[in-house]
Amino acid sequence: MAFTVYLSGEIHTGWRDELVKGCRERGLDVDFTSAVTDHAASDAAGDSLGKETNPFWRDHKSAKVNAIRTRTLIRQSDLVVIRFGEQYKQWNAAFDAGFCAALEKPYITLHGEDIIHPLKEVDAAAMAWATTTDQVMEILEYVTTG
Amino acid sequence: MAFTVYLSGEIHTGWRDELVKGCRERGLDVDFTSAVTDHAASDAAGDSLGKETNPFWRDHKSAKVNAIRTRTLIRQSDLVVIRFGEQYKQWNAAFDAGFCAALEKPYITLHGEDIIHPLKEVDAAAMAWATTTDQVMEILEYVTTG
Amino acid sequence: MAFTVYLSGEIHTGWRDELVKGCRERGLDVDFTSAVTDHAASDAAGDSLGKETNPFWRDHKSAKVNAIRTRTLIRQSDLVVIRFGEQYKQWNAAFDAGFCAALEKPYITLHGEDIIHPLKEVDAAAMAWATTTDQVMEILEYVTTG
Amino acid sequence: MAFTVYLSGEIHTGWRDELVKGCRERGLDVDFTSAVTDHAASDAAGDSLGKETNPFWRDHKSAKVNAIRTRTLIRQSDLVVIRFGEQYKQWNAAFDAGFCAALEKPYITLHGEDIIHPLKEVDAAAMAWATTTDQVMEILEYVTTG
Amino acid sequence: MAFTVYLSGEIHTGWRDELVKGCRERGLDVDFTSAVTDHAASDAAGDSLGKETNPFWRDHKSAKVNAIRTRTLIRQSDLVVIRFGEQYKQWNAAFDAGFCAALEKPYITLHGEDIIHPLKEVDAAAMAWATTTDQVMEILEYVTTG
Amino acid sequence: MAFTVYLSGEIHTGWRDELVKGCRERGLDVDFTSAVTDHAASDAAGDSLGKETNPFWRDHKSAKVNAIRTRTLIRQSDLVVIRFGEQYKQWNAAFDAGFCAALEKPYITLHGEDIIHPLKEVDAAAMAWATTTDQVMEILEYVTTG
Amino acid sequence: MAFTVYLSGEIHTGWRDELVKGCRERGLDVDFTSAVTDHAASDAAGDSLGKETNPFWRDHKSAKVNAIRTRTLIRQSDLVVIRFGEQYKQWNAAFDAGFCAALEKPYITLHGEDIIHPLKEVDAAAMAWATTTDQVMEILEYVTTG
Amino acid sequence: MAFTVYLSGEIHTGWRDELVKGCRERGLDVDFTSAVTDHAASDAAGDSLGKETNPFWRDHKSAKVNAIRTRTLIRQSDLVVIRFGEQYKQWNAAFDAGFCAALEKPYITLHGEDIIHPLKEVDAAAMAWATTTDQVMEILEYVTTG
Repeated sequence: MAFTVYLSGEIHTGWRDELVKGCRERGLDVDFTSAVTDHAASDAAGDSLGKETNPFWRDHKSAKVNAIRTRTLIRQSDLVVIRFGEQYKQWNAAFDAGFCAALEKPYITLHGEDIIHPLKEVDAAAMAWATTTDQVMEILEYVTTG
Repeated sequence: MAFTVYLSGEIHTGWRDELVKGCRERGLDVDFTSAVTDHAASDAAGDSLGKETNPFWRDHKSAKVNAIRTRTLIRQSDLVVIRFGEQYKQWNAAFDAGFCAALEKPYITLHGEDIIHPLKEVDAAAMAWATTTDQVMEILEYVTTG
Repeated sequence: MAFTVYLSGEIHTGWRDELVKGCRERGLDVDFTSAVTDHAASDAAGDSLGKETNPFWRDHKSAKVNAIRTRTLIRQSDLVVIRFGEQYKQWNAAFDAGFCAALEKPYITLHGEDIIHPLKEVDAAAMAWATTTDQVMEILEYVTTG
Repeated sequence: MAFTVYLSGEIHTGWRDELVKGCRERGLDVDFTSAVTDHAASDAAGDSLGKETNPFWRDHKSAKVNAIRTRTLIRQSDLVVIRFGEQYKQWNAAFDAGFCAALEKPYITLHGEDIIHPLKEVDAAAMAWATTTDQVMEILEYVTTG
Repeated sequence: MAFTVYLSGEIHTGWRDELVKGCRERGLDVDFTSAVTDHAASDAAGDSLGKETNPFWRDHKSAKVNAIRTRTLIRQSDLVVIRFGEQYKQWNAAFDAGFCAALEKPYITLHGEDIIHPLKEVDAAAMAWATTTDQVMEILEYVTTG
Repeated sequence: MAFTVYLSGEIHTGWRDELVKGCRERGLDVDFTSAVTDHAASDAAGDSLGKETNPFWRDHKSAKVNAIRTRTLIRQSDLVVIRFGEQYKQWNAAFDAGFCAALEKPYITLHGEDIIHPLKEVDAAAMAWATTTDQVMEILEYVTTG
Repeated sequence: MAFTVYLSGEIHTGWRDELVKGCRERGLDVDFTSAVTDHAASDAAGDSLGKETNPFWRDHKSAKVNAIRTRTLIRQSDLVVIRFGEQYKQWNAAFDAGFCAALEKPYITLHGEDIIHPLKEVDAAAMAWATTTDQVMEILEYVTTG
Repeated sequence: MAFTVYLSGEIHTGWRDELVKGCRERGLDVDFTSAVTDHAASDAAGDSLGKETNPFWRDHKSAKVNAIRTRTLIRQSDLVVIRFGEQYKQWNAAFDAGFCAALEKPYITLHGEDIIHPLKEVDAAAMAWATTTDQVMEILEYVTTG
């Protein structure tokens, strides 16, 4: 059984690569998609449309260009995995969770025990909470081959 | 023209009261709704269903009981105002924004200039960004009486 | 805050009356709706359309006439409470749960600990699991007045 | 004409194998999908996410992990066949029926005459009621090649 | 319990009046709505927009003006009753049935035994088939007061 | 540009074959689907599920089995062509038109000038009205290759 | 029968007032809603959120603030009347038409014969085309009292 | 990552060809679709269904035949690019924008600075505004390969 999994959230650690590599080693029929994860490129996504002096509008344009990609990929996915790390606000990850919840798109959260409480609304609408990429792979293996 | 506005986000400052009082003074036909904003009561929302030893499950139960109220009120509202303050993770506020975006429910964000960048995806899907409650009232007055 | 609550499931015990009376005593602004709970009348709901010799078709006609009422009331409700008792198959109650899940209509289950395992899929999609009508009232009081 | 059929319900008898084998023998262009039907594996679906001492939460986690698979497969199917046997509560099968009804996903029930009455609401929303796997195959042959 | 019932189909007999009068006598809380049932006025509904020499376009304009009323009323109703008589093609009645089926709006058919076969697809998607207005009233009384 | 066209209505003349053959000769990339058009087989579609003494229920079962096929094919199509001939009631064709209208599935009607008036509601919701299969082919050629 | 009608398009002539006054004189139970029609106020709708040096962003902010009002009112209306005049681009009026078409919200166009050709796509999805406010009133009277 | 892009608007300049050629040169995995862009053929799209003496009905028929193609292609696309030029009313382009907005289909506008103000509502609902085809290609390259 083939599955397409969208990976949302933290872009400064190697969790995406771990998942992609691990699932390949397990021989799972899973395709992964993602936002553009090059931080500088993502922030500059709208710059080709003309420079902005006001940082709000620069961000605004880039966020919308990125959304052309991310909204489409989220809608096309069978499952979303959303990673919350220790740094940064990561409001876009929580935004993706709310977006999935309203669309009835199943998602799994991936985060440590120390942020259980602030993530309680996000976790309450998730299909599972994992703390390691190995756990996510276990779930993916079960779901697609079980 | 009557409007129902759901107020989401920060619960530790007086912004909700300011809005309610200010709109009353302006004579606007606006009803405000909200999650339960008593922090302790909200965290304990699921306790009546039985105590949990594991904090994850306590949070889980409370978050779902709260969602019975909040999802219904968000769906019934004409507009959502989402406040991001300087403290706390506020992932539930960003979750509400994503939820609204997917439901095509218009929302306004209310936050300072210092957090423009981490909120860029949230702001990109909003109908407006305000920095003060007075600005929100201006918008509400324009929209309902203009 | 007004709430409309649809009561689904077991019709041979007094749990509906307990809830209605208890919420009135607490002064809650909650309206309750329900299928026709007179068992004999419900089984005969389609008889006025002509007698059937085959019991399958008698049931079929009655079930559809009942659905005219129940589907409308479920769609109009803000919350559904689904009671599973110790007797009978109660597949219609589980059917209502699945119906609510697909419509994103929030529901609470009400049942004893002894049937946790066979109800795990039904409970997994619920917003809460209660074991007593008092617990349901606590939730309703919190949600509508909290 | 190709058809994807999701098989829901009873996991302790060989009805799934009968259908798969029979349709292959008839040369039908039908793909079958299903939940994980290994009972022990299904009950343990969430165990890799961490052990639970409370059986309710163990069931809860496993039911949600299973739902990642089943909801996706039900949505992708053209038809659902739901089997009710003589044993067990099978509330998950009735839940699937209600879920299909709300999504307008056509389903067929497969059960004996002795449980017509308790299944009347489930049958009333079905496209057909069959008592044998041969009958289901007849329908599948008619629908896909007729 | 209040119900809004849209009456579709045959306009040359008194079945609408029978239903309205009978339900009033029974004291039912039912509101009835309908297309414009004055045949000549209905055919001329679009004439005020300018005369047409081609009868196709005259019909086209009138049918669309009528649809402004009928689509809105069908969407606002809780139940639709669709009457097929012995005369005329009544394709608009069958069209309304298909429209209701796709919207999941419950409907009851009202017609004699002699046209069971040509109406089989229409009846198959209905919640009930009645042969007399008394039967329809029985159902309405059961559904709204049972 | 590939197109899937569902052919609904009249089964006693050769219009389907004309369309299929004509489009092949024109080299159009159009796939055609249809209900089972063998009248006797269609009427008997539910017989394998057990004989019925009451003709209403025999029709009921067959109509629902046919709907498993037809609803799926209509939903999968890009366009529906609905043929009304001179004989029979053809309420199922008008039902399909209403079903398409509510789903926003574009459809073309194919019928003679003599039945313009009784089909005015059906035509008013159509994207085109054709009187010959050649006209339908012209439209299909324009739409897919223009 | 009560109707809510949203008036879209041209703001420099008195057609809105004519309609409101005319319908009152006819005693019709019609409520009218509209965007803010004070041109200068509408262009400045977002100014309270902070001045912009770039005219694109000033327009952007104002257009979104206006959309908070207009999208809500369009969704709440039963019918939309869209006026195209002789001056200005009026792309927002055509935008509203497309918005209504996708939402299945019925709309009437109101414009002269000289702009039939450029409005053909807009008119093709409309329920009627009127050239005078008197014609619109005729339709409203027919639809609500016919 | 493959993307399907629907090109809407201006048909009298070479912007479509520039985009198709430029994306091919960049090696992007993008498919382009469009309405029929032969102006005379498009205006005559309905002529094969019979000549009309009234230009309104000729336009009406052609616009609907064109919509069979365009609505389907817009729904199948991942992104829509809408070009507004210096000539013509182009209300159909603004109509497409409104249609996309209501369907939550992301779109980009392509137009010069001189028409920013009249397009403010159209731009406010867009994901990006570009002034050159090179900018559109930059966005497509970023979105599909970034």
